[in-house]
Amino acid sequence: MLKPAPAHAFNLEGDGKGKHIIILGAGLAGMTCAYELNKLGYQCTILEARHRTGGRCWSIRNGATNQEIDKPAVIAKFDDGLYFNAGPSRIPHHHELTLHYCKELGVPIQVYNNVNEGAYYFAEGKGPLSNKKIRVREIHNDIRGYMTEMLAKSIDHGGLDSAMTKEDGEKIIAYLQAEGGLDIDKLYKASARRGYTESPGAGDRPGKIAEPHKLADILHSGLMDPDFYNVAEYTYELQMTMFQAVGGMDQIARALEKKVAPSVKMGAEVTSINNLAEGVKITYKDATGVHELSGDMCICTLPLPVLSNVNNNFSGDVSRAIDYISYIQTGKIGLQFKRRFWEEDEHIYGGITHTNNDLTQIFYPSYDYLGKKGILIGYYNFNEKAQKIGALGYADREKFALEKGRLIHPQYDKEFEGSFSVSWHKTKYNLGGWAVYSTETRKTQYPVLLKPDKHVYFAGEHLTYLNAWMAGAFESARSTVAALHARVTEGRASYPAVK
Amino acid sequence: MLKPAPAHAFNLEGDGKGKHIIILGAGLAGMTCAYELNKLGYQCTILEARHRTGGRCWSIRNGATNQEIDKPAVIAKFDDGLYFNAGPSRIPHHHELTLHYCKELGVPIQVYNNVNEGAYYFAEGKGPLSNKKIRVREIHNDIRGYMTEMLAKSIDHGGLDSAMTKEDGEKIIAYLQAEGGLDIDKLYKASARRGYTESPGAGDRPGKIAEPHKLADILHSGLMDPDFYNVAEYTYELQMTMFQAVGGMDQIARALEKKVAPSVKMGAEVTSINNLAEGVKITYKDATGVHELSGDMCICTLPLPVLSNVNNNFSGDVSRAIDYISYIQTGKIGLQFKRRFWEEDEHIYGGITHTNNDLTQIFYPSYDYLGKKGILIGYYNFNEKAQKIGALGYADREKFALEKGRLIHPQYDKEFEGSFSVSWHKTKYNLGGWAVYSTETRKTQYPVLLKPDKHVYFAGEHLTYLNAWMAGAFESARSTVAALHARVTEGRASYPAVK
Repeated sequence: MLKPAPAHAFNLEGDGKGKHIIILGAGLAGMTCAYELNKLGYQCTILEARHRTGGRCWSIRNGATNQEIDKPAVIAKFDDGLYFNAGPSRIPHHHELTLHYCKELGVPIQVYNNVNEGAYYFAEGKGPLSNKKIRVREIHNDIRGYMTEMLAKSIDHGGLDSAMTKEDGEKIIAYLQAEGGLDIDKLYKASARRGYTESPGAGDRPGKIAEPHKLADILHSGLMDPDFYNVAEYTYELQMTMFQAVGGMDQIARALEKKVAPSVKMGAEVTSINNLAEGVKITYKDATGVHELSGDMCICTLPLPVLSNVNNNFSGDVSRAIDYISYIQTGKIGLQFKRRFWEEDEHIYGGITHTNNDLTQIFYPSYDYLGKKGILIGYYNFNEKAQKIGALGYADREKFALEKGRLIHPQYDKEFEGSFSVSWHKTKYNLGGWAVYSTETRKTQYPVLLKPDKHVYFAGEHLTYLNAWMAGAFESARSTVAALHARVTEGRASYPAVK
Repeated sequence: MLKPAPAHAFNLEGDGKGKHIIILGAGLAGMTCAYELNKLGYQCTILEARHRTGGRCWSIRNGATNQEIDKPAVIAKFDDGLYFNAGPSRIPHHHELTLHYCKELGVPIQVYNNVNEGAYYFAEGKGPLSNKKIRVREIHNDIRGYMTEMLAKSIDHGGLDSAMTKEDGEKIIAYLQAEGGLDIDKLYKASARRGYTESPGAGDRPGKIAEPHKLADILHSGLMDPDFYNVAEYTYELQMTMFQAVGGMDQIARALEKKVAPSVKMGAEVTSINNLAEGVKITYKDATGVHELSGDMCICTLPLPVLSNVNNNFSGDVSRAIDYISYIQTGKIGLQFKRRFWEEDEHIYGGITHTNNDLTQIFYPSYDYLGKKGILIGYYNFNEKAQKIGALGYADREKFALEKGRLIHPQYDKEFEGSFSVSWHKTKYNLGGWAVYSTETRKTQYPVLLKPDKHVYFAGEHLTYLNAWMAGAFESARSTVAALHARVTEGRASYPAVK
């Protein structure tokens, strides 16, 4: 059993007495720090290089602009009311702080439909099932059927652990029959679970069930390979129920921004961070020139690949940690279509199609069901695949997404209207998706940044075990605020680590 | 691969020329018949015994009234804005006609969160895990782990089908390792998939994973018994994506009612159905007395246990079919709580808790997430369990739901505000949940009612292979309208069966 949930209350005692905290970055971590510090009587300044807040918590809708490091700025052209989440698009039901802030800030949520048995598996150019779009339910049920059949046979032939009784074995076999949909002879045959070739209906229409795929065909088409593993629903973070903010995930950032707006300086790019004997001095540039800002303490939420290029007088250990911790390469493309053909023609409502090609996956929108138009995420890839596609120009990314996507959805040709792609590792002020730790960097580098470097604290998803998740930003912000506030109220000269 | 979806267009040609069709019952089937017949130029009268439309498509909100056959009428007292669906509460994503009518009638839909790994399994009074609430994810992942471990071991020891190569075996073992979360030695150990005893967070909080339950404990506690089988997500109809109408499933009925309102006579209880040489004569009684109504044809959508008690001059075969086709016994109770403790304390957002006791299951609401109050469905049971609980008075049903429910959610004691229960087999004008066919009755009785008895057609979920589903009502309505209209426009004296 899980322990009772920790209280969401964040009732710190004592007063910040107007101490000036300079926060670098108006993403979720930075704004949450300001929001909580303001409640405690601090005076905060948030320096944000962009002309928007939210950082990676960013929904692309008409007029959104992006700047990749080797490309001109681009502006999204989508229909009003349509959007896709370029950054986080899912909230696990156990990410309490994320849901807590949604509630506290009045951001309504709706189900993000991460599990959809009606989406497809598509093995491009591999095996007997090559280039066929196959409903997830067919493969799930076929594999489950064959595996339970094999195991039931093995138990029948005495393959049960010797600690188990004969009666246990019989019960397990009965379970396997139900689990796999096996028949009375413990054989896997076609069942309605995997769907129909003709739907059942009224009158004389009982429906028609197709023959299962052969196990060898599934195996040799790579549909039991890691590309198609059930990570999309087995991982703790990806298990249903999942949520999203109604109207785009950036509604969370916007709600936070409303709370801290007077503290935010937009268009302010940090160029140096200097610890002084007493306090900090931050240099930044904006449209009007270069400025210096002094504060009592600083909370730096800049992504590490960005921070790595900012002048500073950090200790050697801190500088090394900033350079050594790596970030994922990842990208998404939003494709607007003038018709929700995935719903109208193919009955796919939300969820994910998986493929072994460089698209990796297609995300169907979990909002505006039965609506007219829609934006789907045409690829969402990582690492080598993201590097390869991220290296392309915007037009070539679109071309790639359409060429591969139409193998699965030929309707792309007729219905496509426009795209917008984001390659996070190439995006100015991000330069990466999220922190990825090896066992080694988690052990050696991570703890270094949990401690402040004199008057500078570090915060963000990268300083948590919730990398990539908005919950990481919120948890880190709270931990950092608590540590900073303890130091201030206890009048300590020492620098306790962030808990 | 599934065949392309049939078109939703229902473009029948020809004109009904004002022929008068008397429709018995203003449930979804009856109203859909009227709606489609009106489009074709027929004149329809719907006789509805109740003072509301919708039949089983019924959301219980403040002021709802019900009449069970052995009890006084009762009125629901719930807070405004709260409701539960006493009848159908889920729309499978492949029930095209249901979604089609939602779209055509302008009824917005939202995800019904049928799959929730965060809900519980609760084995009352059985085995080592007796009376513990265990997250579904723990049991799912433990069983998956142990079963894949057993199978991997068996394959290692040469237990693979001889048609498979050694390389195939290695690939299957790699699959099983990923599927079950096995370690490098192919053993199932604890993994994050089954959740944490301490959640991961920021700083020095990596989270703590608990030890898995022992397979023998799971087995001996009955958690591999049919009570806990994965029917809630494996069945074709229950696979995600599932939907519900926003604001209550009865919004579908209300939207249909708006279209056919002039045709509906409320409070009109049918007492006899008579085929005449030309047309039909229906007798009904209402508050003002007994009335006769003549029409060219009739579509009878009354549930068969109700129709069985209506005077008629049907053929012997038809009368026999009406009497022989059986209906399920089923009931639900809605419990209003002043706090959504299942969300706030236990992070359960929608989905279903399963138990082996007479509650059978608890449904958490899939709307108003993060809201203040909520109604959950305290039991939803069938057959013997529904018969036993349905036999109780309203107060005793509530007492039962609270006594058993508080074993799982002790918060019941403090937070409960009020209940409303519906036992469908005891509800006047229903007398059953939905048609349940045996192989025998499907073969012998079902086809009889697909043909009209002279001028009387039969329609409803009971005349489909989609029993219990709203889609059955819609599919049957369309099939019946098509058959009736073909007869009229072709001037046929013969009675083709409903297709």
